[in-house]
Formats: sequence, structure tokens, C-alpha cells
Amino acid sequence: MCRTCGCEHASKTTLKLETDLLAKNDRLAEALRAKLEHDRIVALNLIGSPGAGKTTLLEATLNQLRDLRIAVIEGDQATDHDAQRIARTGRPVFQVNTGAGCHLDASMIEHGLSHVAPAARSLLMIENVGNLVCPAMFDLGERAKVVVMSTTEGDDKPLKYPHVFRAATALVLTKSDLLPHLDIDPAVIVANARRVQPALHVFPVSAKTGAGMAEWCGWIRSQLEAS
Amino acid sequence: MCRTCGCEHASKTTLKLETDLLAKNDRLAEALRAKLEHDRIVALNLIGSPGAGKTTLLEATLNQLRDLRIAVIEGDQATDHDAQRIARTGRPVFQVNTGAGCHLDASMIEHGLSHVAPAARSLLMIENVGNLVCPAMFDLGERAKVVVMSTTEGDDKPLKYPHVFRAATALVLTKSDLLPHLDIDPAVIVANARRVQPALHVFPVSAKTGAGMAEWCGWIRSQLEAS
Repeated sequence: MCRTCGCEHASKTTLKLETDLLAKNDRLAEALRAKLEHDRIVALNLIGSPGAGKTTLLEATLNQLRDLRIAVIEGDQATDHDAQRIARTGRPVFQVNTGAGCHLDASMIEHGLSHVAPAARSLLMIENVGNLVCPAMFDLGERAKVVVMSTTEGDDKPLKYPHVFRAATALVLTKSDLLPHLDIDPAVIVANARRVQPALHVFPVSAKTGAGMAEWCGWIRSQLEAS
Repeated sequence: MCRTCGCEHASKTTLKLETDLLAKNDRLAEALRAKLEHDRIVALNLIGSPGAGKTTLLEATLNQLRDLRIAVIEGDQATDHDAQRIARTGRPVFQVNTGAGCHLDASMIEHGLSHVAPAARSLLMIENVGNLVCPAMFDLGERAKVVVMSTTEGDDKPLKYPHVFRAATALVLTKSDLLPHLDIDPAVIVANARRVQPALHVFPVSAKTGAGMAEWCGWIRSQLEAS
């Protein structure tokens, strides 16, 4: 609805089609969730803009959690650059290329699982397509959605893109080492994020310096222990 | 298609629905383009991730081009923060809130035009929803798509998100003042962008220091003069 003149101009056709697609995805995601819970596999769905630092965070996380079994599914429109980076850490990884697609869906995860074949009592890290918008709508059967946001992105993003923050369990604030060079107060980012989702766990990190990685990795361990 | 095992797992239903929606949007966008060209209004469609610096670039651009008539349409999922910022520059602005939607479409621009009512021989700057993926698919009747990408986003983004770079006429590389603090070579970003779109005009800028703004604003003037 137009906020200024109150007219309706959103496409109802679009909304109906989206609803059908989402319902189909939700059914498959629920089946995946049941299967993963049965096998005590904890799946985390990492969502953030292109360049938020998702892959670098993943590399640092895999290096810190060497004692855990972790498989990775990577999503990008094109290239297998991220899968190559993860493969160098020695972990099983599968790259999904979505082409023009803007998000991973449950069928892609089901397919990826057949490739990475995670063991029982292990972690599955899913790096979604770089997009702070659409992945919020698509359940992948994960335990939790984690927003990955760079401190360089500014403090009002949780308010401007509320859907993904509302759907998330945790927020990782990356590139904290750049804060001295930015006119950005991370406390404002966190306050805005908690206005949208009060229960959000927040982890400021720098994958470059290692700051904050222990807390983030501790939270991941707690998720696995609770499974 | 799965690159590893060659199976087809993309949803054909989704693709068919997208094709219908895009065709409907394209028809409206062509009508808008004809109207804008008739009135010699040059519309630029700014596309970039959340936090790429689109609004800050727009503010600096409006301040540099004080002698030109410029109207602005702002797209965000929620809030009118950006419209408020633009309004403070004294220009006519209309905020579109897309709710769960991930991009502006031609019907939203048609609607926004009825609010900002640009004069003949003027500029219309459109700031799309922060998303490097979906807006690439939706023609808004613009003269040119401009990718706005922060130097902090890393050098491989043009290869990983090729659709938007292929559709673009220009690339503005923002936050160049942060380069001394990053392990990123902007020449690699540009080389990768030109692998996808060889004809791309590239403008490295810092809205903070003003570096590169004259070249970017000169290009905008040339677009208006060619109309």
C-alpha cells in the first residue's frame, strides 16, 4: 500500500504465486527439519548481503571448530569460488548455483545433503545467496537463521530490512576491525536489531583479528550440545 | 542444474511464473520509457546491496548537481528514512515501501512519478531496494542501470552476481576512502566487472572525501545532454 496516498498498488497476483511457492517450500523444509533433528544434525542458515563476509566468517569458524564434524552447503548465483575456499579447509562442501535465482530453497538443501552426507551429531553450515531480503522467506529446515552483517553497512539496516532480522536467532556483526575508520556506532545497530527481534543473540567479530570468534563459536557449540 | 551431478532440480513452475511476471513488467516499463524519453526525462536506476552507500552517494550527487532539476524515488522494504534524508536536500522525493518485496517494479515507478511529477529535461534518480540480485531482472523504464558497490564487498562480486553487472551501464565503487584499511585491490573488482560487462563505465568515489564525485557527476550530465 502506498504510504502517502493510501492506494493499493501491490500486485495481488504476485502475492498469490509467492504464497503457493512458499507453502510448497515450507512442506519440504518441515520434512528436512524432522530428518535433521532425528539425526541430531544442527543446520545453521547464514544470510547476509553480498560482501558481508559470510565466507570469511565460515572459514574462520571451521578453523576454530576443528574438533567438530561440519559440512557446508554454499549458495551463489554463479561460480564455485566459495566452495573452493571451503574445500581448502578440508570439510565436505557442496556448491549450489542458483543462476538468476535469489535464494536457496529447501529442495536445494535436500539435494546438497545427498552430496555432503553429514554424519549424525554434526553441524551443517548453509551459506545462502548474498541477499538480505529474499532468503528470509524460505525455510531450509534449519535450526536457526543467522544474519551476517558487516559493520560497514550502516546502523539502520535492521529497520529497513526487518523480515530477515525478525526471522533470525543470531546476528554476527563482521569486520569489527574497521570500526575505527567508520562513522558508525555498533550499539545503534544492535539496538535497532533488537527493536525488530528482542531475543537476538549478537556477536561482534573480526575474522581478520579473531576478536569475538570465541563467543560466536561457543554459541555454535551450545546449539550442537542442545540437539 | 546441479553442476556436480548434472541433475535437474530447479523448479520449472517457479521459472514459468517469473517469466509471466517479468513479461507483464516489461510491457509497462517500455511504456514508461517511451513517456520519459518523450519528456526528455533521464531516469537512472541505482542498484546495490544494503549498505553499499546508495543514499549517501545520492545525497552527495544532489549537492553537486545543484543546477539540475532532479526528482528521486526511494525503495526500501520498510521505513521512510531515505526519503527523509533526500527531502533535506530540498528535492522532490517519493518513498516506496515494498514490505516483503525484494525489488522495485515498473508499476511502483509509474505510481511514484505521479507523486514527484518531474519536469521536462530533468533527472529521475531511482534508488532500488538494497539487493544486488532481484532488481537486475526488473526493467523500470530507466535510461541506465547503475550498480553501486562498496569497495568493502570484495573483488569477486561481479563474477558471483553477474546478472546485475551484465545489465548495468555504469559501476560506482563507493567508500574508496576505506581502501587503505582493506586487503582489496579495486583494479581486480574493475577487471572482474568488465569480464562480465566490457562496456561498463566505472567511477571510484568517496562521498565522504568527495574523491571521484566530479567524474561521476560529469557522466550524469552527459546522460542528460544526450537526451
